[in-house]
Amino acid sequence: MVDILHRVAVEKIPPDAVYRALTTIDGLAGWWTTDTSGDASEGGVIEFRFPPGGFDMKVLETTPGSHVRWEVVDGPEEWVGTTVDWRLNAVDDWTVVMFEHQGWERPVEFMHHCSTKWATYLMSLKGLLESGAGAPAPHDVHIAFPD
Amino acid sequence: MVDILHRVAVEKIPPDAVYRALTTIDGLAGWWTTDTSGDASEGGVIEFRFPPGGFDMKVLETTPGSHVRWEVVDGPEEWVGTTVDWRLNAVDDWTVVMFEHQGWERPVEFMHHCSTKWATYLMSLKGLLESGAGAPAPHDVHIAFPD
Repeated sequence: MVDILHRVAVEKIPPDAVYRALTTIDGLAGWWTTDTSGDASEGGVIEFRFPPGGFDMKVLETTPGSHVRWEVVDGPEEWVGTTVDWRLNAVDDWTVVMFEHQGWERPVEFMHHCSTKWATYLMSLKGLLESGAGAPAPHDVHIAFPD
Repeated sequence: MVDILHRVAVEKIPPDAVYRALTTIDGLAGWWTTDTSGDASEGGVIEFRFPPGGFDMKVLETTPGSHVRWEVVDGPEEWVGTTVDWRLNAVDDWTVVMFEHQGWERPVEFMHHCSTKWATYLMSLKGLLESGAGAPAPHDVHIAFPD
C-alpha cells in the first residue's frame, strides 16, 4: 500500500475555520468542486462530482478543529477503499493541514497524477481561506491534459 | 522506504525541451532555484541553493529526451541518499513528466511538506516551458510558513 502525502499551512486562520471547509457542503464546494452534495457529517456520504466523473466519500470521523477522515465508497477503481485523512494543528497564528490519501494498491500513473492534483486543491483550500479565492472544479488549475 | 510521486504534462513542448530544462544549469535555474550551479551532465554534481539552505545532487543518469536521475549527496538529513527520478514521454503534442523522489526513510512531516512543494515546482517547470513564466526560488509559490 502506498500513500499520497501533503502539507500546507493557512495563515491567520484558526483550525475551526479549516474544519468547516472540510465538513460542510458549502465549504467543500469552495475549494474542491462546486458540484458537491450529500451529508458531510460523521456517518454521512458526500458526493463530489467533476466534469470527468466523481467520488462518493463516507465520513468516518469528524473531530472538531482537529481531524477528518473519509473512505472512498464509489469512484474510480483505484480510489475505492482508500481513505483520505486530514489533521489540523494550530502553530502560532497558522493552521497546519496534514493530508494523507492512504491505501493505494500500487503507485500507478494515475496516483502520480492525483498526488499533483491534490496539491493544487490544497492550495485552493489555502487560497479560499486566506483570501476567499478558491479554485474548485470546474475552475481548477490544470496540471496535464484537460483534467 | 516511501516515495513522493507526481505527474504533469507540458503542452506543445517536445521531450527534448523538457530534458534541457532538467540537464542544463540555465534550465534548472528557470524553474527550481535561480541559485543553481555546478555540472548538470552525467557524473557531475549540481548545487541547488535556496534562502533556507540547499541540496547537492549527483547526476546518476541522463538519457536524452527520456530519463534523468539524481542522488542527493548533501543537504537536509532526510534527503541525503534519496533519489530524484524523471521520466519523459511524448503523448500527442504533450510531454508527460513522471516524477519520483524515492527512498525517504519515514513519512515525516517534512516529507509531506516537500511533496506539496515539489508539486508547485513541477507547475513552475510546466509554466516555464509553456509560457516562459517559471517560478523558481526566491520567486516560488509559498505553501506554508515562509518557505
